[in-house]
Amino acid sequence: AIVAAVAARFGAGPLAGRKVLLTAGPTREFLDPVRFISNPSTGKMGLALAQAARSLGAEVTVVLGPVGAVVRDGLTVVDVVSADDMAREVLARVESVDAFIATAAVSDWRPETRAPQKVKKGSSPGQESLRLVRTPDVLAEASRKVAGNAKRPVLVGFAAETEKVLEHAREKLERKGLDAIVANDVTAPGAGFGTDTNRVTVLTRTGVQRELNGSKNEVARAILELLLVRRP
Amino acid sequence: AIVAAVAARFGAGPLAGRKVLLTAGPTREFLDPVRFISNPSTGKMGLALAQAARSLGAEVTVVLGPVGAVVRDGLTVVDVVSADDMAREVLARVESVDAFIATAAVSDWRPETRAPQKVKKGSSPGQESLRLVRTPDVLAEASRKVAGNAKRPVLVGFAAETEKVLEHAREKLERKGLDAIVANDVTAPGAGFGTDTNRVTVLTRTGVQRELNGSKNEVARAILELLLVRRP
Repeated sequence: AIVAAVAARFGAGPLAGRKVLLTAGPTREFLDPVRFISNPSTGKMGLALAQAARSLGAEVTVVLGPVGAVVRDGLTVVDVVSADDMAREVLARVESVDAFIATAAVSDWRPETRAPQKVKKGSSPGQESLRLVRTPDVLAEASRKVAGNAKRPVLVGFAAETEKVLEHAREKLERKGLDAIVANDVTAPGAGFGTDTNRVTVLTRTGVQRELNGSKNEVARAILELLLVRRP
Repeated sequence: AIVAAVAARFGAGPLAGRKVLLTAGPTREFLDPVRFISNPSTGKMGLALAQAARSLGAEVTVVLGPVGAVVRDGLTVVDVVSADDMAREVLARVESVDAFIATAAVSDWRPETRAPQKVKKGSSPGQESLRLVRTPDVLAEASRKVAGNAKRPVLVGFAAETEKVLEHAREKLERKGLDAIVANDVTAPGAGFGTDTNRVTVLTRTGVQRELNGSKNEVARAILELLLVRRP
C-alpha cells in the first residue's frame, strides 16, 4: 500500500502517464422534482477501480452518478445525475484518454416528460401510466465516437445481469465494439449492488475468459492488471 | 448532550416511558430486480427526530427505508424496502405507541407488476409505457386504524411540497386526521432532501403555526418539544 501510494504520488507505476476515464454509480431519471427511476448501484465497484487505477499511477477522472459520501482523494470527480448528463460529460472526454471503463448502472429509460412541480396524488385515479423513452447508451456512443480515431482508448464495459449472464455480456461486447466486458450476476450471493465483495467474469474481444472474486478492491486491481497492465 | 445521554440511559427525561414510532427514508418500488421508482430522501430528518426522541427519554422504533449507513445506536430499527413493507410494519405497531411520526418519503405509486428478470432494452422499441398503481398511504391507514381507540397516539405527518406548501400541508392534516403536520418546501435553499439543515412550518390541529429552522438536529428537538413535550 505504501509503495502504491508513493508510486501514485510521483506518477510512477505501470499506468504512469496514462489517463483513465470511468463512470460509476447509478443515474436518476426524474419524472417530477421529487420522484425518479433509478437502481441500487452504490458506485463501490467503480470507485474501487478508480482508486486501483490511481494507485497504479494513472491520472483518473470519474463521472459519478448520485451516491452517498465517497472517498474522492486523488481523483477528478465530475458529479452528474441523469444518463443525459453522464453521456455529455463522457463524450467530452473520451477522445483524450487511454482507457474508458464504464461501470455505471445507467438507467436505460427515462420518463418522457419531467413535471415542473410535484405531481399530486389527488390529480389522478388509482392508476397511472408513465411514458418512458430510451436514454443514450453512454458506452455505445463513446465507442462510436472513438471508432475511427488513430489513438483509440481501451474500452471496457460492465454487464449487470440477472440471467444468461455470459450470453448477454458477450452480445454487449460485440454490439458495442468493446475490448473487454466484466460480467456480473447481480443476484449471486456476495456480488452485485451495494456489497463489499464481487464475483465477476472478464471476457475480452480476443477470447480470454477469466473469473475473478474477492473484495471489490481486490477484484478492481485484478481487472486492471489483466486489461490495462498486461493487456491480453 | 451529557445530560440527555444520561437521561436516555436511565429512562429519564420528559418522554421517559413513552413509546415513539417513526418512519424515515425513501421507499423503493421495483419494476424488475434492478430498477425502481424512488425519491432523494436520505432519512436524515427522520433519524434526527428518532435520536432527539431517544435523548428526551423515549423508547424509539424506526421503520426505515433503504438509506446508506446511519447511526442506529439506542434505536430499534426495522428495515424495509417498499411502501407495502412499510405499511405492514407500521400497522403492526401503531396501536401500542404514544406517538407516531411519519417522516418517510413514501412512494405514492409502484409499478403494477414486477418482472422476475431484468427487462432487456432490446425487448422493446424506443418507447415504453409503465403502468403504475397507488401504494398504501401509510399515515392515513395508521390514522384510520387508531381512530376509534381509547388511547390514540399523537399523529404527526410530514409534507414535502414544491409549491403551495402550507395549503397542501393543511389539507393533508385535515384529510388524514392528524394532530400536527410539518411542512417542508423541499426546493427551498437549505431545506429538504439530503441537506444537513432544514426550514419547516409546523401546523397543529388546534391552529398553532410555528416556523422552525436550523440544523436537522435542532429542528428535530424543537419539533418534539413543541408537539410531544409541551403539546399545544
